[in-house]
Amino acid sequence: MNTPSSAANHVRIVEVGARDGLQNEKTLLPADVKIALIDRLSSTGLTTIEATSFVSPKWVPQLADAAEVFAGIRKVPGVSYPVLVPNLQGYERARAVGATEVAVFSAASEAFNRKNINASIDESIERFLPVLERASADGVKVRGYVSTVLGCPYQGDVPVADVVRVAQRLHAAGCYEISLGDTIGVGTPAKARAMLRAVAAEVPMGALAVHFHDTYGQALANILACLEEGVRVVDSAVSGTGGCPYAKGATGNVASEDVVYMLHGMGMHTGVDLDLLVATGAWLAAQLHKETASRVTRARTAA
Amino acid sequence: MNTPSSAANHVRIVEVGARDGLQNEKTLLPADVKIALIDRLSSTGLTTIEATSFVSPKWVPQLADAAEVFAGIRKVPGVSYPVLVPNLQGYERARAVGATEVAVFSAASEAFNRKNINASIDESIERFLPVLERASADGVKVRGYVSTVLGCPYQGDVPVADVVRVAQRLHAAGCYEISLGDTIGVGTPAKARAMLRAVAAEVPMGALAVHFHDTYGQALANILACLEEGVRVVDSAVSGTGGCPYAKGATGNVASEDVVYMLHGMGMHTGVDLDLLVATGAWLAAQLHKETASRVTRARTAA
Repeated sequence: MNTPSSAANHVRIVEVGARDGLQNEKTLLPADVKIALIDRLSSTGLTTIEATSFVSPKWVPQLADAAEVFAGIRKVPGVSYPVLVPNLQGYERARAVGATEVAVFSAASEAFNRKNINASIDESIERFLPVLERASADGVKVRGYVSTVLGCPYQGDVPVADVVRVAQRLHAAGCYEISLGDTIGVGTPAKARAMLRAVAAEVPMGALAVHFHDTYGQALANILACLEEGVRVVDSAVSGTGGCPYAKGATGNVASEDVVYMLHGMGMHTGVDLDLLVATGAWLAAQLHKETASRVTRARTAA
Repeated sequence: MNTPSSAANHVRIVEVGARDGLQNEKTLLPADVKIALIDRLSSTGLTTIEATSFVSPKWVPQLADAAEVFAGIRKVPGVSYPVLVPNLQGYERARAVGATEVAVFSAASEAFNRKNINASIDESIERFLPVLERASADGVKVRGYVSTVLGCPYQGDVPVADVVRVAQRLHAAGCYEISLGDTIGVGTPAKARAMLRAVAAEVPMGALAVHFHDTYGQALANILACLEEGVRVVDSAVSGTGGCPYAKGATGNVASEDVVYMLHGMGMHTGVDLDLLVATGAWLAAQLHKETASRVTRARTAA
């Protein structure tokens, strides 16, 4: 962490609250509130803000308004607004409203993939190949999510070799960045570090991101371990929105405010204005009628 | 973390919930519930359980029943039950009910010490010298707390040199262990690491403990950084009880359950049965009529 180079001290935050967060919230927010959320996030200095998901509304009713939300947000120059797409149809819906970055996803756990999208890992990657080909032709960037990298609600342990294999395939297929997600938040720092190290042996560290849920309170410690390994892209969600359908009542994504507080306290740069982020998190928690999961926002707004 | 030696992989948890936790809770628990709490903790495998405080009830009304609680708890062989004492009078009250380990405290911040106990750091250490002398004659172990090691609600930054000086003096005066406390929970991993490293240059690492509050959500990450520096004693409170009188609404001590989960996940040993600890934390939260602050307990009891 004591590197003088500014690149080594810069961490890019990928804000996933409007997608990964809200898709797991019980409270359904109207499209105009989602648009206001993303517009607020755009003013904080964040450069990547996942906006929504073009997955079937049957699966994710919370984001059935994807086209309306994406069309309605202010596109700030220099900020990317990726959207999740499950297949070519979703890709086309996203493109129709002007998306210039998309994200595809696969679990590292065979059991999870089967339960979640009724396909093997290989089948799910096959499905994304047309998306990646089309995106390449269209000049659209594609981010890849690998989920269940440190545990699966169905099969338990997930072999690191499986994580490496899926990450490698998504990267080889054209994803510019692979986000490694501990979907159920069970990981601990030594395991997170070992997993990241194994993946980084096959995919350049510069093309990797980490994505932790705070189900067991381990997210910041895991992020710290991964920063020490060299990762410089971190997914998080303002106000720690979300939750985990596999552990009811559990905490969701790690809160962006808490990640940014830690990074700035360590002398790392994010370009994010923490005060604006805290204000946005407090505002979002009020919209959701729940207490914020961000300890920083709680401490800052409690006084 | 990859050391084969069992000593290097063993972390002693100092459970402070019954004292540091409860003294900052709004809900006043009756003595018999406190006794039940400590008795439950005694069965989890913990070897150090801070039981109460013999500070004046005027200052800490929550623990006015110190003598009754201490006399009432089951003393399990092999488990130590330190109690906080502010001066020789408190020491004598503690000894009268059979305490065999006590703890003294000083802030590293001059401003905090003045506001908190109306004495300079030097004066407060002077006050403890008779306690340390008497304890030495009585064969009573003394633990020393240094508070505000990473920030002070009154003076803001606390120079690391001041932390080192206070820790050194308490150690030289006879404290067998010095617990370094981030009282207001503002610290981040790089600062925690630098502070610990500076203290460890003057006091043996084996005589140091770390004590983090989770006000800004940084506690586990800070603990991880300090484990990497070599510390092997961690203070924590079951269910994350407590709070911070200087940041209302803020979170209290780091939850023991979350610390133990992290340590076990990293292959470290604590001797603590996590299931029993989670059950105790859930029980305590019910007694306090509040949601547990432990993410592990929330995830484990939510399903």
